[in-house]
Amino acid sequence: MQALRYDRFMLGTMYDSQACSIARSLEVVGERWSILIIRDAIFAGSTRYSEFRRSLGIATNVLQARLDGFVEAGIMRRDGADYLLTEKGRDLAPALIALTEWGDRWSAPDGPPIDYHHSVCDAPVHSALVCEHCGTLADAGEVVGVPGPGMPQSRLDLMGEIFAAREARTA
Amino acid sequence: MQALRYDRFMLGTMYDSQACSIARSLEVVGERWSILIIRDAIFAGSTRYSEFRRSLGIATNVLQARLDGFVEAGIMRRDGADYLLTEKGRDLAPALIALTEWGDRWSAPDGPPIDYHHSVCDAPVHSALVCEHCGTLADAGEVVGVPGPGMPQSRLDLMGEIFAAREARTA
Repeated sequence: MQALRYDRFMLGTMYDSQACSIARSLEVVGERWSILIIRDAIFAGSTRYSEFRRSLGIATNVLQARLDGFVEAGIMRRDGADYLLTEKGRDLAPALIALTEWGDRWSAPDGPPIDYHHSVCDAPVHSALVCEHCGTLADAGEVVGVPGPGMPQSRLDLMGEIFAAREARTA
Repeated sequence: MQALRYDRFMLGTMYDSQACSIARSLEVVGERWSILIIRDAIFAGSTRYSEFRRSLGIATNVLQARLDGFVEAGIMRRDGADYLLTEKGRDLAPALIALTEWGDRWSAPDGPPIDYHHSVCDAPVHSALVCEHCGTLADAGEVVGVPGPGMPQSRLDLMGEIFAAREARTA
């Protein structure tokens, strides 16, 4: 258990805005309107300013700023009057679906407003965590994070300091 | 194709802050610091104000407001000096992993800062979209959204209007 606790602890200190892919992702999509606009583009096929505007009821200055930001971030590209998702933008679909399903489980008393289906066979589609050895995991609590190749040494050092402090507190 | 286009279109107009589980989710976790705090709690085991503060470098007033908000939203519960994740909070892990992996694919030039593993067998774990009939999907672009039981009629009506407008434009 000691090794596992250590692994779990490391994640807190290694994840910062420089080192963490969640933080990097949130730089682009972490604002509420951002993810709603991208969702409209992915799942509703919206491409026009007017379509996003009407569908979301978003203030015009906010909408334009977000669309410009998506183009700058490589999530969308402009083609005349259309804002088209790039591959990077479309690749947000799995994260959007996972977030939707959390909302469905905890905040949808009337049932899911949207169900996801496979366009090829029409069967339901769900987000899942898949272990390369065991297959689909029933319990996300069995997932741990470990340092990857992109983890800076400075983060590992800070992790060690906070780990030591926690050890001293809980000893 | 007409039916499919219609399904895809419907999503844009049905998704609003009243009807969409993504929007509901973002009410709680859509702010950047929020998701970083929850991530620290899930994957680093952070429970103390001081641990979140040191790990994230977050302003004290912002941190306290977020922790209070999580308790109110049922994502955390307070136990003395500790902020402990509830089942609802821990259940955000799949969405956090999916978002991390998007960041890894598009914004991690040195490789992933964190890799996820299965604590039982130590094999790598990844987020995936799984079709109940076909199994793991290689292409998220094959996923469509369709109205679920929680979709209000008012949203369906607005969808119809926007659909008609798009049809008229592209005819």
